[in-house]
Amino acid sequence: MSGRILALAGGVGGAKLALGLADVMSPESLTVAVNTADDFEHLGFSISPDLDTVMYTLAGVANPETGWGRQGESWAVMGALGAIGGETWFRLGDKDLATHIERTRRLRAGESLSSVMRDLAARLGVGPAMVPMSDDPVRTMVTTDQGELAFQDWFVRLQCGPAVRSIRFVGADTARPHAALLDFAGVHGVVVCPSNPFVSVAPILALPGVHDALRQTRVPRVAVTPIVGGQAIKGPAAKMLAELGHDVSALGVARFYSGWIDGFVLDAQDATLAADIAALGVRVRTTDTMMRNDADKRRLAAQVLDFVDELAVSGRHS
Amino acid sequence: MSGRILALAGGVGGAKLALGLADVMSPESLTVAVNTADDFEHLGFSISPDLDTVMYTLAGVANPETGWGRQGESWAVMGALGAIGGETWFRLGDKDLATHIERTRRLRAGESLSSVMRDLAARLGVGPAMVPMSDDPVRTMVTTDQGELAFQDWFVRLQCGPAVRSIRFVGADTARPHAALLDFAGVHGVVVCPSNPFVSVAPILALPGVHDALRQTRVPRVAVTPIVGGQAIKGPAAKMLAELGHDVSALGVARFYSGWIDGFVLDAQDATLAADIAALGVRVRTTDTMMRNDADKRRLAAQVLDFVDELAVSGRHS
Repeated sequence: MSGRILALAGGVGGAKLALGLADVMSPESLTVAVNTADDFEHLGFSISPDLDTVMYTLAGVANPETGWGRQGESWAVMGALGAIGGETWFRLGDKDLATHIERTRRLRAGESLSSVMRDLAARLGVGPAMVPMSDDPVRTMVTTDQGELAFQDWFVRLQCGPAVRSIRFVGADTARPHAALLDFAGVHGVVVCPSNPFVSVAPILALPGVHDALRQTRVPRVAVTPIVGGQAIKGPAAKMLAELGHDVSALGVARFYSGWIDGFVLDAQDATLAADIAALGVRVRTTDTMMRNDADKRRLAAQVLDFVDELAVSGRHS
Repeated sequence: MSGRILALAGGVGGAKLALGLADVMSPESLTVAVNTADDFEHLGFSISPDLDTVMYTLAGVANPETGWGRQGESWAVMGALGAIGGETWFRLGDKDLATHIERTRRLRAGESLSSVMRDLAARLGVGPAMVPMSDDPVRTMVTTDQGELAFQDWFVRLQCGPAVRSIRFVGADTARPHAALLDFAGVHGVVVCPSNPFVSVAPILALPGVHDALRQTRVPRVAVTPIVGGQAIKGPAAKMLAELGHDVSALGVARFYSGWIDGFVLDAQDATLAADIAALGVRVRTTDTMMRNDADKRRLAAQVLDFVDELAVSGRHS
């Protein structure tokens, strides 16, 4: 393999595969473009949940139990905030708060999100390039049976309870995508991490020119399923597939991406879906996609890179 | 004794005497008006050091060693902030940060500082009324041999190093004083706590109408010395007395307040200054003013209240 890998990622699943990729390739050849549409302002802080999950994971300081936040975290601020009547539904750990304080301060001083995150990631020892999908604000709004809700209200405060009718990304039509999402010169493959298609990957695709650039490039594009056995590994992807009228399976996800992906990494448990996915004109690689530990992440990453190589030398790709 | 006591307070010394007063009288008859001129904005937070010191002290959750901040405090946020290159010269403990987060959020939402503090103090179980000197921003600026500095830059970051030439209170000429500082109906005595005359008490006096109201009232006004044996109990009061050309003694403080105070509580160590203070037309009560523990605070508070009573029934007072 030669050239860069561009990974599109949301939170936990994306971070895990990104860590695997960083471990099996030279980290400086990996660019992880991260969803920022579930960023929000809370308690006066600019919070970027997906960027932080990817950063903490790549830095080796993520909480392995929750998948978000930092390991060895303490909760003194939240405890004291609750005692004086503050809002505590969005749990911010003490160490994690330092990230929000520093990011917020620097954004207010006029620095771009990509510049702040580049520096924070460097200080935490992150190897790969880790870029926000855009420096401009994009905000996911979820229309539900209880009205339209800001993403974190639906996702965290209401714990994904209200049924989803539709989703929109406010600001996506004018936000400028990060350059890495438009120019694939030197890129060997695009990897769509096993993140939520609707709220992690779709916002990236919604940025001006990104969907077109991904559709038109001759660089192999491989998506890794976030659905195994009809269940999401983590989060509300399966619930959203159902509520938005898709097949609640890896096939539903492959259909959602079909038209611009070349390859789909399917879990071995779902091998019976391979033919239907292939019928979409998408090549299928079947393997164990569950990332229970770092060895799993490396193994899946190696499979994904091998699949990219195969697609690069086979069909239409350079 | 009948009627309310109005105490003017800054940080540590003021908080200690306020706690003593709250312990020896009915707390609901005590109003503590607190300096806000060393409030500042830092890391995006609205920080009110004196209000918080008084609140934590009256709530029984103050750190007895530092005099500021909360007892049993942890420092996880500051530690993580330092690790990512953030500013840590102003030490904000984890529990303390909750206060700043909640205050900042509510101020930004349009609530007044007095309203926020009333609620926070109530949630922490504070008995006496505790009011900011004003809901409008006033900011102490210190002109030094190294130029003009914002108060906390001089006080905390530079540890009071640069020599003080003069002090001004930006915004004091237009800030509206809290009503408790203008209307003394029902007030039995005004107590000037042993706080820094120049940066804790002077900003209160600088608010429109306050100095006049204090000068004209028939309510006894008693100041407690913050200087014992030529030394400040805590903080830069002695250094400021010297650098601003005052006598570095309780006499220097008594002269600074003379013209509107009726009584001065002098430490027994400084008994030789009593005649010079009396010569200013100020009655003197000599006692042990050191507040090493809660019993000391109560004893001094009882002395102060007794002195107020004595002044009320003697001379010109009603």
